[in-house]
Amino acid sequence: MAEPLTREQILDTTEQVLRRFGLDKTSVVDVARALGVSHGTLYRHFASKAALKEAVAERWLHEVSTPLGKIAGEEGSAFDKVRSWIERLVHIKQSKAKEDPELFAMYNALAEESVEVITAHIHELIAQLTKIVEEGMKSGEFQKGNAHEQAAAIFYATARFHHPALAKEWASSHIQEEFKQVWSLITSGLVKKS
Amino acid sequence: MAEPLTREQILDTTEQVLRRFGLDKTSVVDVARALGVSHGTLYRHFASKAALKEAVAERWLHEVSTPLGKIAGEEGSAFDKVRSWIERLVHIKQSKAKEDPELFAMYNALAEESVEVITAHIHELIAQLTKIVEEGMKSGEFQKGNAHEQAAAIFYATARFHHPALAKEWASSHIQEEFKQVWSLITSGLVKKS
Repeated sequence: MAEPLTREQILDTTEQVLRRFGLDKTSVVDVARALGVSHGTLYRHFASKAALKEAVAERWLHEVSTPLGKIAGEEGSAFDKVRSWIERLVHIKQSKAKEDPELFAMYNALAEESVEVITAHIHELIAQLTKIVEEGMKSGEFQKGNAHEQAAAIFYATARFHHPALAKEWASSHIQEEFKQVWSLITSGLVKKS
Repeated sequence: MAEPLTREQILDTTEQVLRRFGLDKTSVVDVARALGVSHGTLYRHFASKAALKEAVAERWLHEVSTPLGKIAGEEGSAFDKVRSWIERLVHIKQSKAKEDPELFAMYNALAEESVEVITAHIHELIAQLTKIVEEGMKSGEFQKGNAHEQAAAIFYATARFHHPALAKEWASSHIQEEFKQVWSLITSGLVKKS
């Protein structure tokens, strides 16, 4: 008798099939065929093609948020943590884009279609960053203020270095230098303190 | 006898033809036909289709850089000027995208094809901003440092609000609030000054 289908197995196969046929041309029947099951069996796990695609997008985004969540939970100075967190985010996105640009583009198209999944992902990332910023405000490392707003501002001010829609520019030989300059601006500020 | 062809006339017509046929399907012959001249005549003004497209992209980008250049040249506090400059840049890009998303997308595709044109445009913008930052460093409004690097950092840290590849997100109801938060972060900095 065949082993029961696991969720991971279905998502692995869906990924392979999506990669072979592309986002638009992949059907649930294709995935079922690649798994060697009927599409009825597959529909018992995922009620629609949209649900299946969302699950793939969600798993991919967890590969980003999970290591970042660990950094947010570590001990240490808030300044070091916020820097590690942003650098790790930038590193994860840029290395995925570099290693396999096609797969990266496919995943981003997939995530863009799943608005709720991507919104939840951004919220999760900003919540992690908010936690670090709160710690820094409490410890006196950071200026007092609204930690959530400040975290969102850090996230958006570094978008050039981690937003998938800007991936084409990450190949620039200046990109690391530019990140350092933006980081220094964000942390120290433009205006002279009196 | 026909009036002599002006450069502006050719670019206006090219714009209309590009709009009707799209970037890929427009040929120099189409533009010549719309102008009522032979393509030989048109080639005397622009040596290739690429040159014609570059000229259209350049003119469009000047609509962005010219009003910004005026702000950079005004009298007044550097702080007010840098804020006006960035707000104007954000406003120009976001209103063009809103008024006519298709034309906006076409122009950006056109500009992306003309790498030298877009590079020169970014350099011009950062040079304008550098001038304002230098003034602010001299007047003591801004922290001392490398004005060019600081200007580039301001430009890149606000990319979310003016980079055409992110235009889809400008429709968000939070976008103005997010700009304010990023602006406040950039000017004041995250870290508490001792």
